[in-house]
Amino acid sequence: MLSEKMQKQLKKESPIRRAFEEGKRLEKIYGPENVFDFSIGNPGAEAPGGIKKSVLKLMNKNPMELHSYMCDAGYETVRIRIAETINARYGTDFKEHNIIMSSGAAGAMNIAMYSLINPGDEVIVIKPYYPGYASFIDNWNGKLVSVKPDPEDFQPDFEDFEEKITEKSKLVIVNSPNNPTGAVYTEETIIRLAGIMKKKEKEYGHEIYLISDEPYRELVYKEKEPPYWTKYYADTLVAYSFSKSLSIPGERIGYLVVPDEVSGSKDLIKAVRIATGMLGFVNAPSLFQRVAAECLEEKVNIEYYRRNKNLLYDKLCELGFEMKEPEGAFYLFVKVPGGDEKAFLSAAHSCNILLVGGTAFEYPGYARISFCVSFNKIRRSLPAFERLAKKLKVQGGNKFGEKSS
Amino acid sequence: MLSEKMQKQLKKESPIRRAFEEGKRLEKIYGPENVFDFSIGNPGAEAPGGIKKSVLKLMNKNPMELHSYMCDAGYETVRIRIAETINARYGTDFKEHNIIMSSGAAGAMNIAMYSLINPGDEVIVIKPYYPGYASFIDNWNGKLVSVKPDPEDFQPDFEDFEEKITEKSKLVIVNSPNNPTGAVYTEETIIRLAGIMKKKEKEYGHEIYLISDEPYRELVYKEKEPPYWTKYYADTLVAYSFSKSLSIPGERIGYLVVPDEVSGSKDLIKAVRIATGMLGFVNAPSLFQRVAAECLEEKVNIEYYRRNKNLLYDKLCELGFEMKEPEGAFYLFVKVPGGDEKAFLSAAHSCNILLVGGTAFEYPGYARISFCVSFNKIRRSLPAFERLAKKLKVQGGNKFGEKSS
Repeated sequence: MLSEKMQKQLKKESPIRRAFEEGKRLEKIYGPENVFDFSIGNPGAEAPGGIKKSVLKLMNKNPMELHSYMCDAGYETVRIRIAETINARYGTDFKEHNIIMSSGAAGAMNIAMYSLINPGDEVIVIKPYYPGYASFIDNWNGKLVSVKPDPEDFQPDFEDFEEKITEKSKLVIVNSPNNPTGAVYTEETIIRLAGIMKKKEKEYGHEIYLISDEPYRELVYKEKEPPYWTKYYADTLVAYSFSKSLSIPGERIGYLVVPDEVSGSKDLIKAVRIATGMLGFVNAPSLFQRVAAECLEEKVNIEYYRRNKNLLYDKLCELGFEMKEPEGAFYLFVKVPGGDEKAFLSAAHSCNILLVGGTAFEYPGYARISFCVSFNKIRRSLPAFERLAKKLKVQGGNKFGEKSS
Repeated sequence: MLSEKMQKQLKKESPIRRAFEEGKRLEKIYGPENVFDFSIGNPGAEAPGGIKKSVLKLMNKNPMELHSYMCDAGYETVRIRIAETINARYGTDFKEHNIIMSSGAAGAMNIAMYSLINPGDEVIVIKPYYPGYASFIDNWNGKLVSVKPDPEDFQPDFEDFEEKITEKSKLVIVNSPNNPTGAVYTEETIIRLAGIMKKKEKEYGHEIYLISDEPYRELVYKEKEPPYWTKYYADTLVAYSFSKSLSIPGERIGYLVVPDEVSGSKDLIKAVRIATGMLGFVNAPSLFQRVAAECLEEKVNIEYYRRNKNLLYDKLCELGFEMKEPEGAFYLFVKVPGGDEKAFLSAAHSCNILLVGGTAFEYPGYARISFCVSFNKIRRSLPAFERLAKKLKVQGGNKFGEKSS
């Protein structure tokens, strides 16, 4: 009785969801303080104080101004402020019409993909990748084509990228800072990817669009923010979310940027606005559109995540686990000692540590550790990781990437 | 470059959106006080005071409790309260797992339809109907099959309903109180429709699901609330929205009810939760889930709409326009004098009155008047309707339905 599509989905298990639910089960048995659930990307840093202030201030407005339907693309004033802020930061020249408010980056990607993908169109993603992409592509009967990363720094493998772009390629998805690796694409990477796509657009005589999925844009441990894609590649759409930058993932607020430089931008802007209605979003949640616009200068508490990263990364290195140090986002992507992912997850589970295997990201032999939990949780998890290392007879410091040198 | 589906959409025009935008244009020329935009269903009654109180109270909570991701079906506590309230009102026996929080009724319908519809499946709607249904059905490549109403009371035409249900029928959509007619289905109607569907389920040996789309449930001008569908037909899903009952349409908050009695309910509940993620909703907006749960006892200001309805209905009858008096929702569905819809809309436009033609609801020869605007706006529009009546040489009182008696 279910649609065939959903029947297929029901047979799949979501490893992230499963780990999360297993964590809740273990917490009931052992107590929350003895379970180390690193499965889910729920931002642990408290929402900046500006959020509360802004909500309280806004609630003095006439309720009709706060909670009514507005234009399907979102409040004009909100979109102007967002465009101005992006322009000031990245030297772009966006206007209000280039910004379409959305239900987070996931909503932004769905309205864009509905507007672009015909059944059978190929959508290129770079491994390892957020499993949601496979769902979004499947919604519109696109075909996911995955590209290898450089196994040592998780930048894309450019040769494989070039090979995988075919006549049927409609769209490329990039995600930097990256979930699950924590890699941040360098400017050189962006220039090279853009160059390949431009060449292929010419070769095939049609557009190859790019969606830059950027929920972690401000979450970087280096000084410089990642380059803004639209300046390097004309056919770029940006899917942004306030979920991580303002720690408000439950509020479902983000936006899609469709620059005027994008081929057919006028029709595409109309299309994503129509898709907002057709899919039942109707508009991004009204109060939090205004809240987000008032909090554009609020900063994510990057020190919260840096402290977690440093403590956990240093400890795991010392214990002999192999991984690249994350440059952004809040994930560690650890190589599975010995390579048996299932055995590793199970050993971790026996130490009350819940992780998500790399298979979920189409990259087996790894495991993702979401370190967006509290610092205390990280501290208390260290003896559990020690037990895990002992169990697996891991030793000798982080040798990740050493084989190549 | 756009998907074929979107190319088709772009060629269609949304008459509601067009009228709304035309209204904004005219307001700039003539001043907002001289333009009578009855095109859109934006609830004019102010949100009950409980909304603001509840937001202010909730903001004292830890932000982590307010704005984080939660279970994809929504907060457990919220769903328990909603289930209890429905049970108390309608004698049902829902538990928390039967309630899935959604982005309004539109979001609820989309996750349900994604979970049920295979390409080519037939979805039955009763004319005239909210144009969004056609979009939602088209998203999943279903086939819309429309059923005639009784032209005098806008209850369904039962014979046509029975004829239109075929082997391929997967789903029926009902909407009472109805947009655009204001009709409320009687208990007799519900019993007869349910009887036909039960018969057809047996005849074809498969489920025929029903979605009752209920954003206007509490918006009735009679004493009794409309009967609760799940008690009459087992395979019923209810799509509910707080948009109209709490005047918060921009906040995108509603829920889907999947009763245990529904065939395959366990899998269906899993499926709609998965669809919530796949489509990018992820979860219903978090703060307003709690606000809605705290405001379940708040009442829609029905007197606000009744006063509008009475003034406008009485005046239009007096002028000689023909229409059925609405029993619920906030629309008048007026018969076009002479039958030329386009000419009528254009004559109304020349009086600065903006309406939506019946064609948008697959019911030409009528026009919808959304009377959810302010009472003052209604009052000030009366001379414009007088001019319209004069222009069209309408006279003699409302004769709607008289021909049959």
